Amino acid sequence: METSRATTLLFLLFLPCSVLCSASRTKSAFPLRRRELMHSSDQGLYATRYFTQTLDHFNYKPESYATFQQKYLVNDTFWGGKGAPIFVYAGNEGSIEWFAQNTGFMFDVAPLFKAMLIFIEHRYYGESVPFGSEKAAYSNTSTLGYLSSTQALADYATLIIDLKKNLSSDDSPVVAFGGSYGGMLAAWFRLKYPHVAIGALASSAPILQFDDIISPYTFNDIITNDYKSESESCYRTIKNSWKELEDVFNQPGGAEKLAKAFKICNGKVDDLESWIETAFVYGAMTDYPTASNFLTHLPAYPVKQMCKAIDNPTSGNDTFARLYGAMNIYYNYTGAAQCFDLNPSSEIGYNGWGWQSCTEMVLPTEGSSERSIFPAQTYNYTEYAESCQAYYGITPRPHWITTEFGGHHIDKVLKRFGSNIIFFNGLRDPWSGGGVLKSPNPSLIAIVAPKGAHHVDLRFATKEDPIWLQKVREMEIGIITKWLEEYYADFQL
Amino acid sequence: METSRATTLLFLLFLPCSVLCSASRTKSAFPLRRRELMHSSDQGLYATRYFTQTLDHFNYKPESYATFQQKYLVNDTFWGGKGAPIFVYAGNEGSIEWFAQNTGFMFDVAPLFKAMLIFIEHRYYGESVPFGSEKAAYSNTSTLGYLSSTQALADYATLIIDLKKNLSSDDSPVVAFGGSYGGMLAAWFRLKYPHVAIGALASSAPILQFDDIISPYTFNDIITNDYKSESESCYRTIKNSWKELEDVFNQPGGAEKLAKAFKICNGKVDDLESWIETAFVYGAMTDYPTASNFLTHLPAYPVKQMCKAIDNPTSGNDTFARLYGAMNIYYNYTGAAQCFDLNPSSEIGYNGWGWQSCTEMVLPTEGSSERSIFPAQTYNYTEYAESCQAYYGITPRPHWITTEFGGHHIDKVLKRFGSNIIFFNGLRDPWSGGGVLKSPNPSLIAIVAPKGAHHVDLRFATKEDPIWLQKVREMEIGIITKWLEEYYADFQL
Repeated sequence: METSRATTLLFLLFLPCSVLCSASRTKSAFPLRRRELMHSSDQGLYATRYFTQTLDHFNYKPESYATFQQKYLVNDTFWGGKGAPIFVYAGNEGSIEWFAQNTGFMFDVAPLFKAMLIFIEHRYYGESVPFGSEKAAYSNTSTLGYLSSTQALADYATLIIDLKKNLSSDDSPVVAFGGSYGGMLAAWFRLKYPHVAIGALASSAPILQFDDIISPYTFNDIITNDYKSESESCYRTIKNSWKELEDVFNQPGGAEKLAKAFKICNGKVDDLESWIETAFVYGAMTDYPTASNFLTHLPAYPVKQMCKAIDNPTSGNDTFARLYGAMNIYYNYTGAAQCFDLNPSSEIGYNGWGWQSCTEMVLPTEGSSERSIFPAQTYNYTEYAESCQAYYGITPRPHWITTEFGGHHIDKVLKRFGSNIIFFNGLRDPWSGGGVLKSPNPSLIAIVAPKGAHHVDLRFATKEDPIWLQKVREMEIGIITKWLEEYYADFQL
Repeated sequence: METSRATTLLFLLFLPCSVLCSASRTKSAFPLRRRELMHSSDQGLYATRYFTQTLDHFNYKPESYATFQQKYLVNDTFWGGKGAPIFVYAGNEGSIEWFAQNTGFMFDVAPLFKAMLIFIEHRYYGESVPFGSEKAAYSNTSTLGYLSSTQALADYATLIIDLKKNLSSDDSPVVAFGGSYGGMLAAWFRLKYPHVAIGALASSAPILQFDDIISPYTFNDIITNDYKSESESCYRTIKNSWKELEDVFNQPGGAEKLAKAFKICNGKVDDLESWIETAFVYGAMTDYPTASNFLTHLPAYPVKQMCKAIDNPTSGNDTFARLYGAMNIYYNYTGAAQCFDLNPSSEIGYNGWGWQSCTEMVLPTEGSSERSIFPAQTYNYTEYAESCQAYYGITPRPHWITTEFGGHHIDKVLKRFGSNIIFFNGLRDPWSGGGVLKSPNPSLIAIVAPKGAHHVDLRFATKEDPIWLQKVREMEIGIITKWLEEYYADFQL
């Protein structure tokens, strides 16, 4: 058993090593786990629409003119009519319903702003696939080639302009929203399409997690700090567990022993370490202050709960029993599972993010320092590129994102350029290391929540929300209000 | 004979109807006239370099990874070394040497700023053609598909970043320069790539000449005003000549009569009207205050000179003799020609601008009002699109430029967004109607010269330059100085 987590490939909904891990370190590709959508909860939240979208906005070859049906969701319950605001969610790497359901903030504030809500699905995800079917779209590099962030942004611009025209509401100000990769897209959308969006709330958008802008050790350092902040013993237990897992795995009958200790009833025990790591990574990322069901059902403060389980004195010296307790929280908070499947086939699907990671979304997060709770390792781009070549027959363009969108010296570059973006980051979130944590200028505003996790601000408000979270949202509402007031004053509407 | 000028298709170096005119109004396609480059004058101005450029920046199909050699010119005579400024010309629709030779301003100011000069050739022009040869690159819509403004901008970003890396001068501030389409590219480059260029001098960049932002009558109205401002009789003579030309052409022996009157020794007389119109259009566009050799050899103030010839009393009532006098100035200022060739075969070349006009650079300029010096006509997009379909088998995307780059309500959109662009426009220039004539914010500065022509500010300074032109250049130098001072202060260099 070898450690196989490559957080480079992990973003929101794809597990580490879902497609690629450096071949030398991975025996098997880890399947992605596509969370089942809660379609049952869609009732009344939105209506579903489709837009005929151009396949390639930047090329005029005949095939560029092909079109596909891009899905978007609409809620106009609170819309004030012509000229009233339109709030647009810039869909990220998954079915748009999932993001709509986990961006309650937009529903919460729609009445206040009399805003129409639009959630646009990202091309190649959900139903918004070209070439007639997911199978066809994902069949080879030629059909996958049109999956890129620049095309997605152009999709959004095209759709929004057309939508406003159809609503006879060209004057409606548009505000973009997004979390995680969607947050990147929202920020970039305001920077590249200021004529389409008057502002953007970019939540947990690690737009600096590219190239050599920040250290590839930052991501795991933050996770380490999260668990360390709960208890030193929790940190130590996790940190020391990998060698013990390895040792037992290499003993005769070790795999069976591990399967028993972790109640594994399906899947290869080779994948156990990765499965455990995943729980710690996503537990940190979604360390929300209230019970949630984003990546999985979790209690409030899951890191605290997982550490409590690890520190549980009834487990004595049994490291595996301690770890198991934590896994049982992350993977089985509802208590429904009797045992675990490391490789559930129902969760395997088309992996758009794997492709994006192997082309442009090269996010160096793999480094683990000596003090990390994960086994120490360096970030190795060469191996990464080789695995992309092996898997897709494609070479990444690791400098493209910084070429197209910038990132280096962002404080200075944006000191005198651009306006109306909120960069929210919660410092519990490992992605916050690649976020914009200082306001580059007075209207590009960084909001930093020390206790916040991955785009926690975008979640539906609950009665249990801590005061700091309520204040973050109030601040965001205040800033967006100002953008809209300025817009209506400028346009004399 | 029918009027066949479609200024929609004309930009800098391509004559109207060079490829497309509405079929109903054109009997023969007018060949483009590619001005011979003055390679003899290149000596010492620059060295020639090549960069291995990516074919498609926004797509990851295997063929997107193909590369081509992109030409660029370098002058580092005055460069101050690491960290000193780099001034980059954003090449437009032609061989880069031509633009370098006609952008003397950059050479003039290089010593002052200790700036390196770089002139980047636009893809598909000059030597910078993919697929191994011009013939191959222009062979069909599949090979031409990669010719687009967005690809060109990404080329510039990629090349500049690589160049700075190779110079070990990442900290060098880059200022973009460009005139006409190159001016559009310079402005858009600053707007889209603020992390690559700290500012842009966009000279005579009609970024508002798209979609329905301005009237399609504006272009010809400005030309009309130019000639009208010289003398009412000049205006009347030109305005009334078209019917006379038409009438004579339709008489038996009329074509021969016209050929004699205008000393046409080659080419179809069908093209005579277009040939005459072209002289009036380009005469207005290049109505420089000093003798020049940009599109052709011209005296100072060519519009005045052409009107003088038209108003010459020795021509009596002979309209054709009057017009001939003007043509002899525009087409034969050196006096070398004994007679004229309406269709010189040596001037036929690959027409990249025709392709760009039929895909995204749809510039509605064709409208001629009742008071126009040209025959009245409306702008007819449908015919335009049909002719693109007939010629290239392609349908334009007339809304793409405003989708990608904006333009509607630019004053309001950029009031609170963007910085460090100079928009120069000379009001004699018909393209100034689509220019930014009011400063959207204090650092997006419109400089308007009532007596100026097409990117006159970018030309080499001469002793004969009028004071207003000297002042324009001083102002530009002052603004660029400020950008650089701010940059060095921000970066503490």
